[in-house]
Amino acid sequence: MSAVMATYLLHDEKDIRKKAEGIALGLTVGTWTDLPALEQEQLRKHKGEVVAVEELGESERVNAYFGKRLKRAIVKIAYPTVNFSADLPALLVTTFGKLSLDGEVRLLDLEFPDEWKRQFPGPRFGISGIREKVGVYNRPLLMSIFKGIIGRDLAYLTSELKKQALGGVDLVKDDEILFDSELLPFEKRITEGKAALREVYEQTGKRTLYAVNLTGKTFELKEKAKRAAELGADVLLFNVFAYGLDVLQGLREDENITVPIMAHPAFSGAITPSEFYGVAPSLLLGKLLRLAGADFVLFPSPYGSVALEREQALGIARALTDDQEPFARAFPVPSAGIHPGLVPLLVRDFGLDSIVNAGGGIHGHPDGAIGGGQAFRAAIDAVLAGRPLREAAVENEALQKAIDRWGAVEVEA
Amino acid sequence: MSAVMATYLLHDEKDIRKKAEGIALGLTVGTWTDLPALEQEQLRKHKGEVVAVEELGESERVNAYFGKRLKRAIVKIAYPTVNFSADLPALLVTTFGKLSLDGEVRLLDLEFPDEWKRQFPGPRFGISGIREKVGVYNRPLLMSIFKGIIGRDLAYLTSELKKQALGGVDLVKDDEILFDSELLPFEKRITEGKAALREVYEQTGKRTLYAVNLTGKTFELKEKAKRAAELGADVLLFNVFAYGLDVLQGLREDENITVPIMAHPAFSGAITPSEFYGVAPSLLLGKLLRLAGADFVLFPSPYGSVALEREQALGIARALTDDQEPFARAFPVPSAGIHPGLVPLLVRDFGLDSIVNAGGGIHGHPDGAIGGGQAFRAAIDAVLAGRPLREAAVENEALQKAIDRWGAVEVEA
Repeated sequence: MSAVMATYLLHDEKDIRKKAEGIALGLTVGTWTDLPALEQEQLRKHKGEVVAVEELGESERVNAYFGKRLKRAIVKIAYPTVNFSADLPALLVTTFGKLSLDGEVRLLDLEFPDEWKRQFPGPRFGISGIREKVGVYNRPLLMSIFKGIIGRDLAYLTSELKKQALGGVDLVKDDEILFDSELLPFEKRITEGKAALREVYEQTGKRTLYAVNLTGKTFELKEKAKRAAELGADVLLFNVFAYGLDVLQGLREDENITVPIMAHPAFSGAITPSEFYGVAPSLLLGKLLRLAGADFVLFPSPYGSVALEREQALGIARALTDDQEPFARAFPVPSAGIHPGLVPLLVRDFGLDSIVNAGGGIHGHPDGAIGGGQAFRAAIDAVLAGRPLREAAVENEALQKAIDRWGAVEVEA
Repeated sequence: MSAVMATYLLHDEKDIRKKAEGIALGLTVGTWTDLPALEQEQLRKHKGEVVAVEELGESERVNAYFGKRLKRAIVKIAYPTVNFSADLPALLVTTFGKLSLDGEVRLLDLEFPDEWKRQFPGPRFGISGIREKVGVYNRPLLMSIFKGIIGRDLAYLTSELKKQALGGVDLVKDDEILFDSELLPFEKRITEGKAALREVYEQTGKRTLYAVNLTGKTFELKEKAKRAAELGADVLLFNVFAYGLDVLQGLREDENITVPIMAHPAFSGAITPSEFYGVAPSLLLGKLLRLAGADFVLFPSPYGSVALEREQALGIARALTDDQEPFARAFPVPSAGIHPGLVPLLVRDFGLDSIVNAGGGIHGHPDGAIGGGQAFRAAIDAVLAGRPLREAAVENEALQKAIDRWGAVEVEA
């Protein structure tokens, strides 16, 4: 029987196996033991099954917090795929719809049969497609984030864009809080942004992609994205969690929108951080975003002030790049609080097939965005060459200034 | 200056006012004090403002749980509406996008300027429009939920539908886990469901509406909903949190989809329950669903096993029905664990303009769904007449049997 396997963390005062049995029935055929044998025969292939209940010890810390004794267990339930249509809303409603409201229950993972997965697109470009676009094959890419752009005009935007490109970054992304406006209209950002980056390319031979924030009402997004594709947009930044996973998939599946999609984690922190509720980051930002078709996924790095636990960040990256999956691999983009001195850590944790992404760590460089980009590129080169940053900095002033400002972390070889 | 006011609950080790100032700048103009006076002048109308920081006492329980001392405060920040487009994704990304990932922060409320609200539709029908459709003006409506319908066929569905209608319910809704399938296709559910309900109407003169679950891929929903409207569908059930608030709004705003929309809370429990993270239920299921255009909103009642705290459930209902808002009022549908004996509580807490909604409390009646519906209708009549349920049950066998099974709660007048 083809089934999706859901893994939950449950906290409950009562018997957890019994609760699990109630979930498996309640979210599929409703009842079982009361049914006549004939109906059982008819409904058997629709019935959910508790596959495992792994009891964890009680946590005194948790008991003290709730003021009652809670059993804890990891529970696995199989939901027959025949029960729901092959789309992400149906998957979420089946496995964590009503159940999300049922006390202390957290969705940790979903595992899919191969033939079920094949009904989903995965990334259109993925890591290899993006590398071709930017012409860089042998190192982590470098991305910078527009900051302080709200209230500015197109002349400011293009001048900032050029500075960032001149520093040697591979991609520049809009701030996710930049929306379509009269001052900075979506289409003009694409056309004038491209023109500015073409100028830099003609000057330096370095290609830089610009990820423009795709915003507005859901049912207008496809037209906007098609227009963006026609105008030659490099990448679409998309606040997928403010819209819906399936909206991302719809954009990915449209054959007229052949533009890479960069998923931003905005609002996902409403869903992922609790120990007791919500959805694990590796599932929500990793597995599901890749299934739906994100080419890049931003998520909090383990190092900054807005941080994810290291294991959670690594779990997202693993899900995006796992080569056992029948999908193109998506670029992990650990973000927030990144400066050049962290590049050794980033490469150790996320490998070459990742993107080094910085806002303040580029703009806040003593020599501005150009120096910031240069410092990062030098740091990346040093790490790839197996050289300590402080040693490489002797020959690179921009890197030296970055280290003087933010320090540097060395990683044991 | 027109601004959206966001209210947060923050837990943080560091100074919360400083953090709040960082949020107000970081989510608007980026920096301020470093800017030249001319740029400050240009950007002033875009700058976020900390409007209030109300420090709460530390909580020993919370400190023990996190293993560190956390300050707690309610913080209000004003975000100029000029910064973002008038759509819900832009609103969420601005007020709780990146911020949702920034430690222990929960979004409690959003307040909108009147002229900003007017860019949103609110419910198309609302309470008064729904009352007209069902022809009931002076009591809470009664709704029953299909259960155990997965794996069944249309003949079973229509026969169950008839039984429920014969018990006197005003609405029957699909189970939210019922998707479009070969056994129970969407369009056939509408046409055959309508035919079955017409039969009952001709027999009894009682009109019953059927809420069919609108499912599938986001960008196919409008066509499906239009087809449903053409086929005369009474109500569309919609798992809005598995799609996106703005998808609901898009359905509401389409002039070819003149069908009431019933919002189901599936998956919202991934967002609402934590003390530290996510979004308050009164905002997410109350204010925002009404703004987007839901005519009905289901949410966990305070009484069942899948329960919401009473104050939270009341907060949702208040937001849906507050007559100070420039929108039609939406029907609160407190759900889960409802049986006839709870009707006095439901009416006390949610008033006449609410919907009594039951699954097991109707189907699990000793006389089946017909008896279940009759018992509820008798309970509603008794409460409106100011009679204790046990007294009314003397003259009503169905109600007596329900009370014998589930008990009854009396409320002081």
